[in-house]
Amino acid sequence: MTATVSGLMAEIADTGRDDARGGYSRPVYSTAEQDLREWFSEQARRRGLDTGTDSNGIIWAWWDTPFGVRDDAVVTGSHLDSVPGGGAFDGPLGVASALAAVDLLRERGLTPAKPIALAVFPEEEGSRFGVACLGSRLLTGAIDPDKARNLRDPDGNTFADVAAAAGLDPRHVGPDPDALGRIGSFVELHVEQGRGLIDLDQSVGIGSSILGHGRWRLRVLGQGNHAGTTLMEDRHDPMVAAAGIVTAVRDCALRHPGARATVGRMVPVPGGTNVIASAVDLWLDVRHADDAVTAAVVEAIHAESLRVAAAEGCTVRLTEESLSPTVHFDPALRSRLGGLLPGAPVLDTGAGHDAGVLAAALPTAMLFVRNPTGVSHSPEEHVEDDDAEAGARALADVLQGLAGKG
Amino acid sequence: MTATVSGLMAEIADTGRDDARGGYSRPVYSTAEQDLREWFSEQARRRGLDTGTDSNGIIWAWWDTPFGVRDDAVVTGSHLDSVPGGGAFDGPLGVASALAAVDLLRERGLTPAKPIALAVFPEEEGSRFGVACLGSRLLTGAIDPDKARNLRDPDGNTFADVAAAAGLDPRHVGPDPDALGRIGSFVELHVEQGRGLIDLDQSVGIGSSILGHGRWRLRVLGQGNHAGTTLMEDRHDPMVAAAGIVTAVRDCALRHPGARATVGRMVPVPGGTNVIASAVDLWLDVRHADDAVTAAVVEAIHAESLRVAAAEGCTVRLTEESLSPTVHFDPALRSRLGGLLPGAPVLDTGAGHDAGVLAAALPTAMLFVRNPTGVSHSPEEHVEDDDAEAGARALADVLQGLAGKG
Repeated sequence: MTATVSGLMAEIADTGRDDARGGYSRPVYSTAEQDLREWFSEQARRRGLDTGTDSNGIIWAWWDTPFGVRDDAVVTGSHLDSVPGGGAFDGPLGVASALAAVDLLRERGLTPAKPIALAVFPEEEGSRFGVACLGSRLLTGAIDPDKARNLRDPDGNTFADVAAAAGLDPRHVGPDPDALGRIGSFVELHVEQGRGLIDLDQSVGIGSSILGHGRWRLRVLGQGNHAGTTLMEDRHDPMVAAAGIVTAVRDCALRHPGARATVGRMVPVPGGTNVIASAVDLWLDVRHADDAVTAAVVEAIHAESLRVAAAEGCTVRLTEESLSPTVHFDPALRSRLGGLLPGAPVLDTGAGHDAGVLAAALPTAMLFVRNPTGVSHSPEEHVEDDDAEAGARALADVLQGLAGKG
Repeated sequence: MTATVSGLMAEIADTGRDDARGGYSRPVYSTAEQDLREWFSEQARRRGLDTGTDSNGIIWAWWDTPFGVRDDAVVTGSHLDSVPGGGAFDGPLGVASALAAVDLLRERGLTPAKPIALAVFPEEEGSRFGVACLGSRLLTGAIDPDKARNLRDPDGNTFADVAAAAGLDPRHVGPDPDALGRIGSFVELHVEQGRGLIDLDQSVGIGSSILGHGRWRLRVLGQGNHAGTTLMEDRHDPMVAAAGIVTAVRDCALRHPGARATVGRMVPVPGGTNVIASAVDLWLDVRHADDAVTAAVVEAIHAESLRVAAAEGCTVRLTEESLSPTVHFDPALRSRLGGLLPGAPVLDTGAGHDAGVLAAALPTAMLFVRNPTGVSHSPEEHVEDDDAEAGARALADVLQGLAGKG
């Protein structure tokens, strides 16, 4: 019995719905995400896969070779956590497609020459503890375990406490060379988060790279004062300066083709309706395939922000919060995927993924499935059933090519 | 023994300090504000004033005439609550000056021909329950008692519950014609919240009017999406539209001399660093002495907001949250104050006050004391000791003129 991706997705369609925001809110280790993890483990066990959770909370489900040696494995998978009010497919599509691909390979009668494993990574979105791809970062040592243990969620709970409540031993989170050493290659299937495949009229594409990406905080300081008594001429209003900065962010990005620059978060202090703010914090997200262009965009935004703030009698300070260079997926593996999926276009993405973090330790690749709205991190994210099944077939082809008899 | 204003202010200088924001946070019925209320009552009792709290939480301290009839009283006072991170003087200066003025009048040997009363009003700032001048609005019937009982503070507590915990019977809040009927005139002394007296080089001024004032909410709707994957050209970013609106608010106000227009509060939804917002709420505060100009400014801002939002492929909706016309203080009373304080300049103010609410029911007036920074609702608000004492003397002169033997 071969499951369809859409059938598997339908089984979890009611889990973690967010009636207030729309879509789904499935923060890592919430009841919703734990229910999905349990659902995946049960699905994997039903398929005879040897399934368990490691010390970093990553679920592994093994389809072993007749020889039983877990070495040079071909691993696929994704994540089950979501952003607040996210779509149904970001994460779960890759997990459901991995299960469906196993069914397709069984149907084809494959006996793997290399072990195949399915993996589910926790906190890919970083929407609970603020660090994206926390599971793969812990696995590869890209984050210090002490730093991870002390991360806090919006309710003030530490990652250590939440992980312990989820059944992990927080003393044992961190780099796991044994687990990493078993992986020969990692292929993550994911819903596309842009319009590339729409424009190319294709169901499935192969990932080339993940855009370099950084976050900066801009703190604008002005003169807090009374909104009713302070003449317009006497003001040093950091909100007016912040508005000029938001405009400058957009203009600077437009001057650099391919660059994306966003202000999605802004907090005026003290934030009263009848108070001219004394300060405004805003956060800047900038991405480009060429790290030098990312730096140039941020530089231009910084210069323009200083000018805008000074014109309002305010000051502004820019602080880097994170910076990740562009990740180019392993060229040899990508070329093998190109051979296994003739005609599939090659696309980059502006979104981070566990495959991007793992790329520092081993050959990784990605498959993207068309999203007819082009919208993601939103309830409007979508995948048509036909494209979902095409994605699972492509993933099965890739796993067969990489793990089947040579 | 005559107390100085600065001596009285020093007694409360440690109450309700806000180490995080600077200045003072003294929300109504917090421990800090209750401590100040107790302090005032004790000070009033020490002066032999008959002191008690009415059903609306207003403290009254009576200096009766030899005949003991509480009718046609001359009332002065202010409030003890503050905005978050406010200054030391907004409210308490009027209360301390009232106590000091009583001492000065005793020193002068006054026997009042009319009763004099000191009053302390709760929740003048509206910073806990969102409605400014809540005490005087309840007293005069300017707010429905049911609506007041159901107001909630940021922690979700109702005004009814908080008032009950503070010792009031919430069933009995509301219009109090008996209390109002005892007042012949009300004079509130307040720190100036602008630069009028600085520019005129005067310690004390007389209030003429309170600018008309309204609050509006603007909800900008765009297309939520992924900050990394969405090309700049494909965006409908409500934050970019909101930035254009903030700029338009400032520009529209500048085109109307004397108008003040402020955006001090802005909330992007969902507010993630790596998410293009789907909506942005911003709040608009507009004030002008001429209500027609206030309306024209809001009209111009609305038109410009529609244009700015449409240019970004967004929509915007404007909702009025409150609107108060300009209050002109009683001309006859103001003219008497002018006679009692020769040379004192006459000023309007952009800030709301209990004297403005009471003006709908009885003759009211205000005295302003110079603020050398011109800044208010901020820790930088200030009053020099000499100006504070000059204010108390002016208030004593006014009380003596209004309540002394004719």
